[in-house]
Amino acid sequence: MITREKAEEIRNQALAYYEEANIVLTDAEKENLEIADFGLDDIDNTGLQLVTYINTDRYCAKEMVLLPHQTCPEHRHPDRSGESGKQETFRCRYGEVYLNIEGPRTESPSSKPPVGDEDYYTVFHEIRLLPGEQYTIDPNTLHWFQAGPNGAVVSEFSSNSDDESDIFTDPRIKRIPEVQE
Amino acid sequence: MITREKAEEIRNQALAYYEEANIVLTDAEKENLEIADFGLDDIDNTGLQLVTYINTDRYCAKEMVLLPHQTCPEHRHPDRSGESGKQETFRCRYGEVYLNIEGPRTESPSSKPPVGDEDYYTVFHEIRLLPGEQYTIDPNTLHWFQAGPNGAVVSEFSSNSDDESDIFTDPRIKRIPEVQE
Repeated sequence: MITREKAEEIRNQALAYYEEANIVLTDAEKENLEIADFGLDDIDNTGLQLVTYINTDRYCAKEMVLLPHQTCPEHRHPDRSGESGKQETFRCRYGEVYLNIEGPRTESPSSKPPVGDEDYYTVFHEIRLLPGEQYTIDPNTLHWFQAGPNGAVVSEFSSNSDDESDIFTDPRIKRIPEVQE
Repeated sequence: MITREKAEEIRNQALAYYEEANIVLTDAEKENLEIADFGLDDIDNTGLQLVTYINTDRYCAKEMVLLPHQTCPEHRHPDRSGESGKQETFRCRYGEVYLNIEGPRTESPSSKPPVGDEDYYTVFHEIRLLPGEQYTIDPNTLHWFQAGPNGAVVSEFSSNSDDESDIFTDPRIKRIPEVQE
């Protein structure tokens, strides 16, 4: 669980990244910025900040911020009620992001799992995305991603998003926002 | 039909807008920038410049440029083979865009149909979008949009895109790229 004070600190850091990347947000979007700590209480290492622009039953668009070296932990989007799982495209807008997916292990990768959490990372085919570069992940495919030393702003274009159906490799993870009052 | 020389001029203008809006494109995206003149041979008034980031059978994301006062003409996205027509969200990133949709006529609108083409514009409920503002259009709903005096960069998030199925109010329109060699 993240304290309100810590959440405010992270929120301000994230807003500075959007501004640096020249991404204009409304006041309401800034106010409702989502801070995901995945229930691990280690947001500087494992976490994600995001604004969901739109999420209909057909498509979804989000603008995500990762702080320097911050990691979105390994997960996949399973099929749901007979429909194929979430398909998503990550497009780097600012900074540098390392996307790890299923496939041959990358030699000398730039990213590595957060210290102490190595057991919960199993795919190591690393794709490096610089601004303007993008990659589309097939449904139900394990993936995780980590920002470079200067953080990253990443657009996500996808089919409908339903965080509750995500399956994380780390069984401790809860994908629900929790802020300590 | 647009001449190659004119296409190059428009392309360079569009690329300057992406740069001004701090949208980073790959060299391939710049090279493949789509210039739509809708077959009207009047691109300074009626036209659209766009980069399609991704278009799967489930979702689509584009980054569009409109030059000052340039208009994307009135059209709708009909149902296709039993599936609901394209649903799309326009998000203004730079400049100002006036989106006209079905609904009560807006008094003292900022946009107006291109001179001489008034017969082919029938919806006048105007929604003004500034950077950070967005609007989602229901499937099969007539709409057209026009940039303000400084042009506009607009992100489009949507379900699958299939330009060939679009139905334009102006029967002269052909939504296929044509460049004179």
